[in-house]
Amino acid sequence: MSKEKCVLAYSGGMDSTISTVWIQENYNMDVVTLTVDLGSGPEIERVRERSKKAGAIESLVWDVKDEFVNNYIFPGLKAGAVYEDSYALSTALGRPLMAKKLVEAARKVGASAVAHGCTGKGNDQVRFDASVMTLMADSSPLKIIAPAREWGMTRDEEKMYANKAGLELREVGNDQRVYSIDRNIWGQAIEGEDLEDTWSEPPEDAFSWTKSIENTPDKPIEIIIGFEKGIPVSLDNKKVSGKDLIEKLNSLAGEHGVGRIDHTENRLVGIKSREVYETPAAIVLHKSIKALETLTLSRDQQRMKNTISQVYSDMVYDGRWFTELRNNIDAMMNDMHKYTTGEVRVKLHKANCIVTGRRSEYSLYDFDLATYSTDDIFEHSSATGFIDIFSLPGKTQAKNQTFHDSK
Amino acid sequence: MSKEKCVLAYSGGMDSTISTVWIQENYNMDVVTLTVDLGSGPEIERVRERSKKAGAIESLVWDVKDEFVNNYIFPGLKAGAVYEDSYALSTALGRPLMAKKLVEAARKVGASAVAHGCTGKGNDQVRFDASVMTLMADSSPLKIIAPAREWGMTRDEEKMYANKAGLELREVGNDQRVYSIDRNIWGQAIEGEDLEDTWSEPPEDAFSWTKSIENTPDKPIEIIIGFEKGIPVSLDNKKVSGKDLIEKLNSLAGEHGVGRIDHTENRLVGIKSREVYETPAAIVLHKSIKALETLTLSRDQQRMKNTISQVYSDMVYDGRWFTELRNNIDAMMNDMHKYTTGEVRVKLHKANCIVTGRRSEYSLYDFDLATYSTDDIFEHSSATGFIDIFSLPGKTQAKNQTFHDSK
Amino acid sequence: MSKEKCVLAYSGGMDSTISTVWIQENYNMDVVTLTVDLGSGPEIERVRERSKKAGAIESLVWDVKDEFVNNYIFPGLKAGAVYEDSYALSTALGRPLMAKKLVEAARKVGASAVAHGCTGKGNDQVRFDASVMTLMADSSPLKIIAPAREWGMTRDEEKMYANKAGLELREVGNDQRVYSIDRNIWGQAIEGEDLEDTWSEPPEDAFSWTKSIENTPDKPIEIIIGFEKGIPVSLDNKKVSGKDLIEKLNSLAGEHGVGRIDHTENRLVGIKSREVYETPAAIVLHKSIKALETLTLSRDQQRMKNTISQVYSDMVYDGRWFTELRNNIDAMMNDMHKYTTGEVRVKLHKANCIVTGRRSEYSLYDFDLATYSTDDIFEHSSATGFIDIFSLPGKTQAKNQTFHDSK
Amino acid sequence: MSKEKCVLAYSGGMDSTISTVWIQENYNMDVVTLTVDLGSGPEIERVRERSKKAGAIESLVWDVKDEFVNNYIFPGLKAGAVYEDSYALSTALGRPLMAKKLVEAARKVGASAVAHGCTGKGNDQVRFDASVMTLMADSSPLKIIAPAREWGMTRDEEKMYANKAGLELREVGNDQRVYSIDRNIWGQAIEGEDLEDTWSEPPEDAFSWTKSIENTPDKPIEIIIGFEKGIPVSLDNKKVSGKDLIEKLNSLAGEHGVGRIDHTENRLVGIKSREVYETPAAIVLHKSIKALETLTLSRDQQRMKNTISQVYSDMVYDGRWFTELRNNIDAMMNDMHKYTTGEVRVKLHKANCIVTGRRSEYSLYDFDLATYSTDDIFEHSSATGFIDIFSLPGKTQAKNQTFHDSK
Repeated sequence: MSKEKCVLAYSGGMDSTISTVWIQENYNMDVVTLTVDLGSGPEIERVRERSKKAGAIESLVWDVKDEFVNNYIFPGLKAGAVYEDSYALSTALGRPLMAKKLVEAARKVGASAVAHGCTGKGNDQVRFDASVMTLMADSSPLKIIAPAREWGMTRDEEKMYANKAGLELREVGNDQRVYSIDRNIWGQAIEGEDLEDTWSEPPEDAFSWTKSIENTPDKPIEIIIGFEKGIPVSLDNKKVSGKDLIEKLNSLAGEHGVGRIDHTENRLVGIKSREVYETPAAIVLHKSIKALETLTLSRDQQRMKNTISQVYSDMVYDGRWFTELRNNIDAMMNDMHKYTTGEVRVKLHKANCIVTGRRSEYSLYDFDLATYSTDDIFEHSSATGFIDIFSLPGKTQAKNQTFHDSK
Repeated sequence: MSKEKCVLAYSGGMDSTISTVWIQENYNMDVVTLTVDLGSGPEIERVRERSKKAGAIESLVWDVKDEFVNNYIFPGLKAGAVYEDSYALSTALGRPLMAKKLVEAARKVGASAVAHGCTGKGNDQVRFDASVMTLMADSSPLKIIAPAREWGMTRDEEKMYANKAGLELREVGNDQRVYSIDRNIWGQAIEGEDLEDTWSEPPEDAFSWTKSIENTPDKPIEIIIGFEKGIPVSLDNKKVSGKDLIEKLNSLAGEHGVGRIDHTENRLVGIKSREVYETPAAIVLHKSIKALETLTLSRDQQRMKNTISQVYSDMVYDGRWFTELRNNIDAMMNDMHKYTTGEVRVKLHKANCIVTGRRSEYSLYDFDLATYSTDDIFEHSSATGFIDIFSLPGKTQAKNQTFHDSK
Repeated sequence: MSKEKCVLAYSGGMDSTISTVWIQENYNMDVVTLTVDLGSGPEIERVRERSKKAGAIESLVWDVKDEFVNNYIFPGLKAGAVYEDSYALSTALGRPLMAKKLVEAARKVGASAVAHGCTGKGNDQVRFDASVMTLMADSSPLKIIAPAREWGMTRDEEKMYANKAGLELREVGNDQRVYSIDRNIWGQAIEGEDLEDTWSEPPEDAFSWTKSIENTPDKPIEIIIGFEKGIPVSLDNKKVSGKDLIEKLNSLAGEHGVGRIDHTENRLVGIKSREVYETPAAIVLHKSIKALETLTLSRDQQRMKNTISQVYSDMVYDGRWFTELRNNIDAMMNDMHKYTTGEVRVKLHKANCIVTGRRSEYSLYDFDLATYSTDDIFEHSSATGFIDIFSLPGKTQAKNQTFHDSK
Repeated sequence: MSKEKCVLAYSGGMDSTISTVWIQENYNMDVVTLTVDLGSGPEIERVRERSKKAGAIESLVWDVKDEFVNNYIFPGLKAGAVYEDSYALSTALGRPLMAKKLVEAARKVGASAVAHGCTGKGNDQVRFDASVMTLMADSSPLKIIAPAREWGMTRDEEKMYANKAGLELREVGNDQRVYSIDRNIWGQAIEGEDLEDTWSEPPEDAFSWTKSIENTPDKPIEIIIGFEKGIPVSLDNKKVSGKDLIEKLNSLAGEHGVGRIDHTENRLVGIKSREVYETPAAIVLHKSIKALETLTLSRDQQRMKNTISQVYSDMVYDGRWFTELRNNIDAMMNDMHKYTTGEVRVKLHKANCIVTGRRSEYSLYDFDLATYSTDDIFEHSSATGFIDIFSLPGKTQAKNQTFHDSK
């Protein structure tokens, strides 16, 4: 009788290669590796080769960058998904898609389990597990295996497994990677030793996508980003695909030092954690759409969107992507962005991302109302009536409750 | 019988000088001018002299900078009062204090009216009127006169009044001021012609407190700001008064190009308006306290504070400072900041204000929990139980409502 | 040359009849009356006749009850539109539709003005004016005339106008109506003298749709209301139109004393007002859908809906129906109610409306998880892991910030 | 060497008596039982006797009813703590106090562990554990033992332990209690078999504090409750302690059938659960304070309080009582209730709790503003100015974004 199969999310790194062996030995299962390409730039051929050496019976590599951009990144952009006003949720948006592909692959190859390399302390395990549990709910259940959460290996055991995986010891010993990095087209998250002291400035070698201010060009560049219904569709008046735009902006903005985030954040698992990110395109695009919204959304819409954005960001961060509430919010966001069409001009200079202009055919900014010139069409005389009624509750309360100015 | 008196908020500028005359003529009242010094740097002697020339029977000049900092700016800082995530509410925080002083002066000199120079289209008239109405509610009512909202003068009439005010025509004719500026220690607001096109970049001459990126020093500076219970109390480990700290930060940060805000905002009176601000100290201090809060407030506290900050900012912007709700929120903020004590290191460089370190004796960041090293004290095995229960609602919903992934 | 025309919202009462004359005289316009039938039960023929006598050149009577139910009441029901947790917004939901019909009629008969009978102190003037201003924005502007806000008539003048309107004096003199009542299919609002003391119980004669507890049947009745995607579609397992259902429920619930609301509410114009309502069907339907939602919405969805309901209710109350934000929220609500399908059993008895059962094929209540029997499928052992992580922030804060129990 | 000690929360029931034995055997510890009297009406002497028979070395009985009322119930009342608009959180408010007393007792008797009888599926385990973890954080850690979550006993094993506890078999066999009941002065929660079908009406025998409508008196009673700063202090104009008031109201309102709640609620552990409660006093007091607040809080305060109440209710329900955020919110609530002083008249009749009057010396209801008589002091002419500005954003948006009425 043939063994049961497990589909393992496979990055090609040491841990996931060891996991390939570990699952075979500890679960007595055949392993199919799945490398989900979200723009993390894996060296594809090496991935296949390594996975085979480690005993995988099949090595899948799926490029889902366009799906990632259109169905995860852009809905997040439209919803203002920035965790704790800081982090554009690059990894968090990628995990549910990876989980979805894991389940798809498992169904396709007839696997009874899926596996991922997350440990027991991070957010990613939750995002993976919660997504898989939801997506498999309408069919037969899949076992979820998380070797790094389960194994509790010593260094020696790791070496043994590395050997079995066909990785040379040298490779293990030389593992000079100081930082733990997770990377996709929407940004990279950098964690690790030096960053764990919240009083220390992140060392320059933590960053690889963005230049330090000192090394950025002295001359700024200006770019114009065009939006249609909340989706960025053009760069400097040329239509561009979402994927190409993001890659271009990562390069341009990174060159000018834009994109570094240094944030002490609340993890879902109840601890605070110091995280460093590089998300050049995400910063430019979130700033741009916000600027455009100041023209195209009413004050009430902006307030509502702000409230919802906070909820949405927490949901994405917490791995609650595949939920009805996320669908519900997306429905509102799609409706709210009916008129988020227009252009934003952005200057990139010395780590600054400055919006220098915004315009829209649907702009609610009305020059004739707003101008300070004497030709404005605003009814000044309405003001006193407005103020009378606007002030009435405060006046009444001050009278009846003897307002005591605490200041 | 002696005339009734009116206390006029007096800046010393053309409009308020004309108003001094206008009120005497149109309301047949004696005018007492009150110059409230919030750090706007009025040339005091000139103010007295001008006011007298314009016929004021008394010219009061009150320095309330410390009161402004301690009772208005710092409560706003603690409450995260940043309007539409952009504007630190410099003018908006100053108006209620000016109104309060107007009412105090009116009571003191036995006036039956107060006056201010706001037009009928801005926010400031609401802030003045609403504050005065509240503060006078427990005693005899004061008439509120707003010449610029009432007069509807032509240029010729303005000249006539200027003449009567003892201002030379030349002065009127030479009025080269392109921008309308309101200034206090917490920032300046710049409005006017060139800025009324949302697609145009603000011209360099609009700014006077901050250097352009090109003209800032190549070398960054780093400063350390110390907080106690949410109040900034030291700079580079030296105790400093709030007023001195703000003035110092305005100068330091301005020198490095930090402090420019360019925002299309929603006015209270129902229109969108393009506003440019310079608020160097406010940006540094709001960034700093937020960074410290990432250590000292729990996730739940941060979420609550965020929700409240949005309400508070709108209240301040809308002139609802003297309300019970503002008192209520301040009570929560004071309690919430019991542990916002610690230090933040900030780097100022090329218009960037970058927090490079934060620490607190009350920090909730726990190295032993957060570290990626293998010595952490986090219970990894708790994770699966947590995830089981955390994912249960999503799983149940997916099963019972056949989750349709909209992505 | 023919006169300009004004379309007047016409109820057939004394005030709107006087207004018919007043507009002709004071604006020199021809008046077309429009009676919008929202289920207010006007005696149609009398309306036409009176309007003609008062000089109207045309008397339109439009039955829009189905439009009212399907496009106003039911969206409000789905959004949980209950003002201050008390008032189901019957009048407030009707005004925008009346305004819409006024504008439609004005366009149809070529009028240059519309008119309504609201005074200057209530909410309805705002709802009318705001709606008309929005709906006419894409075409030529319409003048808005509000006689009762403008006229300031004495009793004698009113009599004179009544005479001119062909109303007999007797009718004016006999105007015994103590209460001011506004009525449509979704409820009636009762205001007036006796109710203006918040310490007094509303007298029994204020109510006409609901029986007093003493006079209700001793035996309860039970009914079953069926919902599909958030819309009530059946009564006791028989399909029924929205309009018929509401009328039936008004009668049934009213008979059992259900439907009285006595509330001190915040008017939009800044004052508190004591309002008494009778809304039997609205109470039954809001209770029913809420009960069904406890089965079909997740905790997160319920929290979000609650937050949104508060905003939505204020918007409807404030006359901001025709806004993009209302469209946006409806989009979310429609999505959220995809699974609000099922049945609710309600017992009506002695002024109580008690939900005694709720069920849905999409219910998230899972007997096998919830049961206290020992056969449940809940993983009890997951609990400790969950609690470990759930409690971690509190534990850390207590340790690092020396929690002082304020209780 | 003497054994370590464990303090067990002891109700005197079968489960907690068995736990007394179980802990001794399975943890080899001495057991001190602690009976925390929250108004659950335990038969105290029997408790002591049973506990001794089961081998407890000490049997503590602490009456903390006043502490419960003043420091838990009334803060909850002031904060509007009603879970999912239905459940006044009787059990949830009691658990943290019980946990606090457990920790106090453990410190006092030198115990190294505390124990409670909760299972692994409910909310109460979380409330206990989270509270204990927080309260012990500043000193040596206490082990938390939860026998019913750990043991997994069969019926036969339970019998064996019952025997050892000195309980006669008969008692076990006769345990006819269908419902699982938790009871304190603020209400009782009833769970169990018949109630687990959401379509079934709760059988009459589930209720013991409240009469069925059929059995209530035909004549209503009216009572007057007096509040001072948000605390109920008098009944029918006589000063009364909180405890006495609640007991009196439970009796009075229960007699008239007021107090039954039937709710499908979201448990913290991710499942929906059908719960039945009897909370007569809680319903009367929450209704009363809400009615008083309609007079004494401004619209803005009411909105803010509503938002906060939802958060607070979830916090209490979820066992996050001993958190800084709860302290923070209480600080706001205390400030907000400065003027919640006055009287509310309530009619109890046939299961209805109807507020028939409310008054306050600080009432914001202003007869002279609100009256429909022609002598009102409201400035009707201000309305048009107000509406002009209030409607401006909607008008602008309709013009610039071609408003499409979705209705």
